[in-house]
Amino acid sequence: MSATRYTYLGPEGTFTEAALRTLPEAATRELVPMVSVPAALDAVRGGEAAGALVPIENSVEGGVTATLDELAKGDPLMIYREVVLPIAFALLVRPGTALKDIKTVTGHPVAQPQVRNWLGTHLPDALWESAASNADGARLVQEGRYDAAFAGEFAAATYALEPLVTEIHDAANAETRFVLVGRPARPAAPTGADKTSVVIWLGDDHPGALLELLQEFAVRGVNLMRIESRPTGQGIGNYCFSVDAEGHITDRRVGEALMGLKRICPQVRFLGSYPRAGVALEDVRAVRPGTSDGAFSAASDWLARCQDGRF
Amino acid sequence: MSATRYTYLGPEGTFTEAALRTLPEAATRELVPMVSVPAALDAVRGGEAAGALVPIENSVEGGVTATLDELAKGDPLMIYREVVLPIAFALLVRPGTALKDIKTVTGHPVAQPQVRNWLGTHLPDALWESAASNADGARLVQEGRYDAAFAGEFAAATYALEPLVTEIHDAANAETRFVLVGRPARPAAPTGADKTSVVIWLGDDHPGALLELLQEFAVRGVNLMRIESRPTGQGIGNYCFSVDAEGHITDRRVGEALMGLKRICPQVRFLGSYPRAGVALEDVRAVRPGTSDGAFSAASDWLARCQDGRF
Amino acid sequence: MSATRYTYLGPEGTFTEAALRTLPEAATRELVPMVSVPAALDAVRGGEAAGALVPIENSVEGGVTATLDELAKGDPLMIYREVVLPIAFALLVRPGTALKDIKTVTGHPVAQPQVRNWLGTHLPDALWESAASNADGARLVQEGRYDAAFAGEFAAATYALEPLVTEIHDAANAETRFVLVGRPARPAAPTGADKTSVVIWLGDDHPGALLELLQEFAVRGVNLMRIESRPTGQGIGNYCFSVDAEGHITDRRVGEALMGLKRICPQVRFLGSYPRAGVALEDVRAVRPGTSDGAFSAASDWLARCQDGRF
Amino acid sequence: MSATRYTYLGPEGTFTEAALRTLPEAATRELVPMVSVPAALDAVRGGEAAGALVPIENSVEGGVTATLDELAKGDPLMIYREVVLPIAFALLVRPGTALKDIKTVTGHPVAQPQVRNWLGTHLPDALWESAASNADGARLVQEGRYDAAFAGEFAAATYALEPLVTEIHDAANAETRFVLVGRPARPAAPTGADKTSVVIWLGDDHPGALLELLQEFAVRGVNLMRIESRPTGQGIGNYCFSVDAEGHITDRRVGEALMGLKRICPQVRFLGSYPRAGVALEDVRAVRPGTSDGAFSAASDWLARCQDGRF
Repeated sequence: MSATRYTYLGPEGTFTEAALRTLPEAATRELVPMVSVPAALDAVRGGEAAGALVPIENSVEGGVTATLDELAKGDPLMIYREVVLPIAFALLVRPGTALKDIKTVTGHPVAQPQVRNWLGTHLPDALWESAASNADGARLVQEGRYDAAFAGEFAAATYALEPLVTEIHDAANAETRFVLVGRPARPAAPTGADKTSVVIWLGDDHPGALLELLQEFAVRGVNLMRIESRPTGQGIGNYCFSVDAEGHITDRRVGEALMGLKRICPQVRFLGSYPRAGVALEDVRAVRPGTSDGAFSAASDWLARCQDGRF
Repeated sequence: MSATRYTYLGPEGTFTEAALRTLPEAATRELVPMVSVPAALDAVRGGEAAGALVPIENSVEGGVTATLDELAKGDPLMIYREVVLPIAFALLVRPGTALKDIKTVTGHPVAQPQVRNWLGTHLPDALWESAASNADGARLVQEGRYDAAFAGEFAAATYALEPLVTEIHDAANAETRFVLVGRPARPAAPTGADKTSVVIWLGDDHPGALLELLQEFAVRGVNLMRIESRPTGQGIGNYCFSVDAEGHITDRRVGEALMGLKRICPQVRFLGSYPRAGVALEDVRAVRPGTSDGAFSAASDWLARCQDGRF
Repeated sequence: MSATRYTYLGPEGTFTEAALRTLPEAATRELVPMVSVPAALDAVRGGEAAGALVPIENSVEGGVTATLDELAKGDPLMIYREVVLPIAFALLVRPGTALKDIKTVTGHPVAQPQVRNWLGTHLPDALWESAASNADGARLVQEGRYDAAFAGEFAAATYALEPLVTEIHDAANAETRFVLVGRPARPAAPTGADKTSVVIWLGDDHPGALLELLQEFAVRGVNLMRIESRPTGQGIGNYCFSVDAEGHITDRRVGEALMGLKRICPQVRFLGSYPRAGVALEDVRAVRPGTSDGAFSAASDWLARCQDGRF
Repeated sequence: MSATRYTYLGPEGTFTEAALRTLPEAATRELVPMVSVPAALDAVRGGEAAGALVPIENSVEGGVTATLDELAKGDPLMIYREVVLPIAFALLVRPGTALKDIKTVTGHPVAQPQVRNWLGTHLPDALWESAASNADGARLVQEGRYDAAFAGEFAAATYALEPLVTEIHDAANAETRFVLVGRPARPAAPTGADKTSVVIWLGDDHPGALLELLQEFAVRGVNLMRIESRPTGQGIGNYCFSVDAEGHITDRRVGEALMGLKRICPQVRFLGSYPRAGVALEDVRAVRPGTSDGAFSAASDWLARCQDGRF
């Protein structure tokens, strides 16, 4: 039944599955790998799944721009949770394989630059070929087509491999952000450390439109955490912007900024307000003076008094 | 009784009196000249008068900065009307005086540059001395102290003089704006061609504070018609800003801009929303797309739907 | 001979004369009082004087807007020095007059609000009449027309009066700024604590033009110290802006900001770069990172390397 | 020899190869497919190739973010040309295969959403599996592993397949932009329809830093054509921005904007000024008044006169 099913970007053994399993509720759900981000999300749109976990930022397995694009079009979806996962690769081999035996390695093309330095040092003569996903690379090692695959260490068991080397990552602090997506409903109550995601289309090709968009946030003291341009599919040079802002849609500064965008942009799509992963309340930046809910209420009261001539 | 009394910047025979007499209700009021703008306004604050007419912009008789400063401090007052008067001087003389008889001329110091060219051409040898007001100059001519005074033509009768030359003004299109001020009450309903006046104090001496102030207006598409810095009396370099904006406080774009100012500035003083003088409805600039009351309502509705998860 | 003559806003005994006498070179100049700011400046334009001292901000004697307007039009002039004078009034009387004898007081209209509280407390029944200047008021007391005049204490000697009360000022820290104006020449070298004055006309009546003007300064990290709108004489609603900015025209951030204004505005008038009065070098605010002359040079070098493909 | 060798994102038969072959000079170069964008660019950095053609925007084969990231780090490279290619897929099969025979299809994961609608209509029961590239998918069809592959029609010959259906694309006007990259050298002279690419790092995590970045362009009237945030590899929330701006680095408005960025940002990397693909001179948007090279020169002259006191 759909209410107990979560889809995710498969196949089994990907970082996405690992991220999904960090959610407590995952233990009581049926977890279904899907061939692509669109497929994972369509299962939610169609009612076959209650949620889908997909990568949205800095992925080592691709799928990120697909996620941004899929959330921006079609039937509306909403983000309810985010999960941030540190990224480190393991070199998976069939049991018994030693480093000197490795002539061919595989992995997702996006993984290659992240392990390039390691490869140059430890396997300078190995031949790299790309696989459709890191997990798919593991499967091809299991089938004997390649000698080793870069993937998450957790993928070893799924494909009866063993991790010969672990914690491989050229960049320190590499991490990927995933989001849990569902059909629209009332967002969770604010926690004080929240994030709001929207997609914003710019009206016409007028220079300065992006500046105006940013000023709707800036003038209300709403900080942006991420902004990405995405092509709209109307040809090179036509963009929409995927934006994460600090705060919750029920915070008045956020609400007023969103209404401002709604008024000046041809389309704004609300993608949800949800708790920020891995941020303690005491680490949340203080809101700019004059932008708290209290400041908004005081200003509303003052305006009403002015409109009534009582001051 | 105070409800029938209007004060104005005197003495009798000033342009301010002429402006006041253009108001239909002036015919049924007791019109009382006062020695200064503060005196005229204090009579309203104290309840001895229902209204005061004072010059606020481009005066030929001074008093403008006094008006801005007086409205900015003390008990609150509100502007209910504005009157714009074209400015032209007459050269007033005692009956029988000819141009060739004039050795000395007087007038308010502010009038001097406005008649300088005329003087250079027609009375190159006349000696100028300043008077405390144009009307006071006329009185001094009546008393015989000077041969001629520059003042409004309407002042001739008051001081038993005659206008020897009229329509003197070096700058074409010279005009002065006056405002009718009263105690706070609910502003008149919007006419569609309205103006809102406020005084805004900047919080600290941080560079960019003025830019932020202007952006509160700009981001809501509210046009500014006038902005003047005024010293706050806390020493050179400390300012407040006197601002006239297009629109009425009940226009949602204006209300939101005012609330934004209220939130970021230590003090904002509302001085009234009132009809623009001499502007036909069809000459009012269309509001920027996305800033009409309808656009604000639509955005509010959308926000409510997003907050409820119904979209 | 003109090179030794300085004019000033008269008559003798005004605060302007007092300010002029604080300049060391005043001791060796012929100091000539003029009837008005335009007259004082025209003497410089015409070559009859080498310089003119006129009030430009927060005057207690008027003349400020006249100064702004006169500097903005006609043959170009330049500001070479500024003088800031603390303002305190003395109550001047004929020798022998006691407080209880005073029935009538006079002074410039602008002085009246600054002594109003004092009058209310100490001379509640005295009748106020305005004079054309504070010094003129003193003269009228000398002539016996009034019992007392508010003026600078230094005016007592000129008019054979004595200061009955001194240090009268309703606002603490009241001060007036004066400028020494001459014909255009190369500005003095920067001192590190400088100020640059310009007058800027806005091109058309497009909303946001003022914002663009301010951004030319802001984007180069140039702080504004004063901005005042002045009517252009083309009718209500047409303005130019009189601006004082921190820094010297030879500072690269200031030069680039001025060029930016020159490019987008129909007219920009440079009024001079000169030392800030009363500001020690150690009290000058540090320039924003990235806006020092060194940062400009480094960026120029980098651009040249990019244009040459050497990087 | 390297001067005659161009690398590209392979394998043979990709859209990238097709784009490369549209360049006249390609006919006289040795064209070498590389396994990844980093590999293609490293061959240029290492001197084994004179240039590399890689996709940079809206790719149907991935590699775009890899391109942005690779250009942003390591030894500097420069963009010399851009090529825009309309994107349409062909369904490639072994000779003799009919639509009804197709049970399995493959292609790059990024291609899947672009052919999804077509698949749903014409091959609703076919099973999709992802390949490492569109060309790799074609190879797997040749090897008999899948029945059909989505790829460019030009890939058919390379893999001895035939295009069963052509011109498949869910989005009308789909196109991909590629860039020809080489080692740094003096950019080509401006053509009047040019584009300048840079990568800009924001200094610290201060809200408004992006706004400041955009204002460096806006205040000089330089239009942005593309802006994309890219993670810096320092963890979620740390970004650099990849930007394409209208104009050439030798245009003064562009040069001044770049210097402004250089001054306020910790790092700016110039990626080249080059002709815009597919834009006729008459279709280039006129520069904003006041931002032409002539306006810059006139402003420089004026500043020099002001600094000399000659005006």
